[in-house]
Order: sequence, then structure tokens, then C-alpha cells
Amino acid sequence: MLICKVIGNVVATKKEPKFKGKKILVVQPIEVDGEPYGNSFETIDIVQAGVGDIVLVTVQGSSARDALGDMKMPIDSVIVGIIDEIQMD
Amino acid sequence: MLICKVIGNVVATKKEPKFKGKKILVVQPIEVDGEPYGNSFETIDIVQAGVGDIVLVTVQGSSARDALGDMKMPIDSVIVGIIDEIQMD
Amino acid sequence: MLICKVIGNVVATKKEPKFKGKKILVVQPIEVDGEPYGNSFETIDIVQAGVGDIVLVTVQGSSARDALGDMKMPIDSVIVGIIDEIQMD
Amino acid sequence: MLICKVIGNVVATKKEPKFKGKKILVVQPIEVDGEPYGNSFETIDIVQAGVGDIVLVTVQGSSARDALGDMKMPIDSVIVGIIDEIQMD
Amino acid sequence: MLICKVIGNVVATKKEPKFKGKKILVVQPIEVDGEPYGNSFETIDIVQAGVGDIVLVTVQGSSARDALGDMKMPIDSVIVGIIDEIQMD
Repeated sequence: MLICKVIGNVVATKKEPKFKGKKILVVQPIEVDGEPYGNSFETIDIVQAGVGDIVLVTVQGSSARDALGDMKMPIDSVIVGIIDEIQMD
Repeated sequence: MLICKVIGNVVATKKEPKFKGKKILVVQPIEVDGEPYGNSFETIDIVQAGVGDIVLVTVQGSSARDALGDMKMPIDSVIVGIIDEIQMD
Repeated sequence: MLICKVIGNVVATKKEPKFKGKKILVVQPIEVDGEPYGNSFETIDIVQAGVGDIVLVTVQGSSARDALGDMKMPIDSVIVGIIDEIQMD
Repeated sequence: MLICKVIGNVVATKKEPKFKGKKILVVQPIEVDGEPYGNSFETIDIVQAGVGDIVLVTVQGSSARDALGDMKMPIDSVIVGIIDEIQMD
Repeated sequence: MLICKVIGNVVATKKEPKFKGKKILVVQPIEVDGEPYGNSFETIDIVQAGVGDIVLVTVQGSSARDALGDMKMPIDSVIVGIIDEIQMD
């Protein structure tokens, strides 16, 4: 999984019917020290995350779909947790 | 998913039979500010997107095939929405 | 999918039995303007492509195997079309 | 699989129910000579690895879920072994 | 698939039970001209490859597991052939 920061959301009126009612969030991967890297991407949320939250994102489609209880939803990632703390040793 | 801009299409007469009648679009990944990054790639559309549209692309094969209602079509991505607005906070 | 140019082929006498009789092609990803990028890779062909052809390659294993009608063949990509023209707008 | 070093762990109170009781470890990919490369990521452990261990990580969701005996857990990687020695010739 | 050179192997006493008796090889991706690129990774072998061999590696978990005849083994790649010759035109 990747640690990401939720930085926005996407509005799409014309979309695959299964996305209806699902919030599409923009997330930015960040390192354990908070430093952003790579490009932002769009994902779906199952833990009520919002803008500003540091989240854990599973980045594989078949895994992501299982999390939503819908094997047929065409997604490739999903937010699976809101991070409270990162403990480094 | 990735935000991409539709920038063209591909014509292929000789192709896997399941691609018959399906438009193959060329898309370029862009950041939330519209800046292109990485390389363009080819994808299939289920929401009637056209050249110039800013779209949301799911980039995983098993997810993409589900969206087309055809588990056997050999694709690795699919356009799942046309983006109206990206809201950043 | 990726646009690639077929640039060679690989000979392997000792191989997984399911590869017997299948041609293993070397392909180089290229951008829409023909410029090569990234590293070449090896793939299987279902549309009779040959060296010099510009092809469309699906780069996901489960999708690729479906194209060959063999869910058990251990491949991770497949050539699904020979490109006649790339139309940019 | 990738050789990684376990460098920390993540605390997430609000998470997908199937993550309850599972330790989420932070791992850093390293080369065979111990040199780190790329970005760290988060994973799940099935071999009782701890911080400081050099581990072998399978980085694919469907494979990872099988290792946990749970096809429905939304993960994209898993620690499958603790490395004793890397033998180079 | 990727062309790789086998450069070593990994010893792990504590590991997922299904890895017992399986040799874990270290492979380095190389270009068609033999030039190494990217990072080395670890994989499983089904064609009796050894250190120094130039091999063909399938880099997708579900494909790799099929090659081993075990849908439940948590691997993400597999060596599927030993390369005799790369023919470039």
C-alpha cells in the first residue's frame, strides 16, 4: 500500500453507472517524512476519508474491488485506512 | 485512476476480433493542473469520450474488462468517466 | 495498450511447454510520433505481426492469457493489433 | 519479489475491518548490496518479521491475498520470507 | 516478458511454507544488447535455470502462479525460458 495525502476530488457527470454516489478523491503519494513523490492519482474511499487526511491506499484493481464488495466495479485502487501515526525506528 | 486528455485515435485493420467496432483512443496522462507527464497510451472508451475531453482512466486489465461486460476482451485500461471539474483544497 | 515496434525475436529451446510453437517477439515502446521510450520487452503475438510492424500491445497478464484462449499460459502481455494509422487532432 | 528492509509501522484506527489485528509494516526496497532505491511502501506480514529485518516481498495483490488465506483482503503486497543470506556469484 | 540475467540466489529459512524446496533466484533485467537496466529482483524458476543464464521472465503474479501449477503460491514473477539467441533485424 502507499501512504497518500487526500488533496482534492473530481466531478464527473458522465461516468460508468457504478461510480454513481461514489466520491472520487485525488491523492498524492508521500514518503514517511511527508515529502510528496511521483504523480497524484484518483481513487475511491471506503473509510470516509476527506481532504487533508493522510491515508493508506491499496493500488491493485482486483484487491480494490473486493474492498468495495463489488467484483465488477472498474477501479484500480482504494483507500483502506486513515493513518494516525507512522512509527519509524 | 488517472486523469488523461484524449489526444487522438488508432486505426488497426488487422486486430483481435473482439476489438471490432471499438474505438481505440490515444490518451495523455495529465496532472490536476493540466500539465502532461509520462507517455501517452491507448485505451477503450465506455462513456462516449472524444478528442479533447479530460477523462478518468482505470488502468488495470481485470477491472477494465469488467467495465466492458466482457471478461475475455484483452485490454489493460478503460475510460470510465468524463471529468467536468477537479476541485482542489 | 502501448504502441510498440517489433524489433526482433527470441530463441529459447528450454522453455515452459506451453510456449512451444509460439513466436516470442521483441518489441520497443514508441510514442505517437514514433520516438522510442523506455526498455524493450518480449511478448506473444495473435495477429501475425512481424519485425518492422507497428503494433498495439496489451500489457497485463490476465488479459493477455484470455486473448490466447488459454488461461494457464504464463504471459504478461500480448500483441492485439497491427496499427495502420495514428490520427492525432 | 523484492528485497526490502523493514523500517517502521503504521497506526490506523479507522480502517477496512479486515485489517484489524494485522500489523502494517513500512518497507524500503534495497538492492542486493543493501543500497536503498525507490520509495518505501506499506505491506502486511505472514512470517513474523520486525523492524530491521531484511525481507522478501511479493508485490501483487492477488498473490498477496492468497498468502493470507483470504481472497477478499484488499492488499497489494505481502512479506513472504525473512532473508538470511544473499549469495552472489 | 523481460530478458534477465541470473546473478545470484536468496537463502531464507523463515518463509511462507509453499516456498519450501523452491530456489529463489536474483535476476537483473538486461536490454537486447546485454546492457543491465533498472533494479534486480527475486523470482522462481520452472526451467532449471542457474547463475549466469540469460532467461525470459514473466512478471505478473497470476500468470506466474499458473506456471507453477499452484494458484495459491504468493509469487509475482517466474522464469519461463532459457534464452539461446536474440535475433535482431
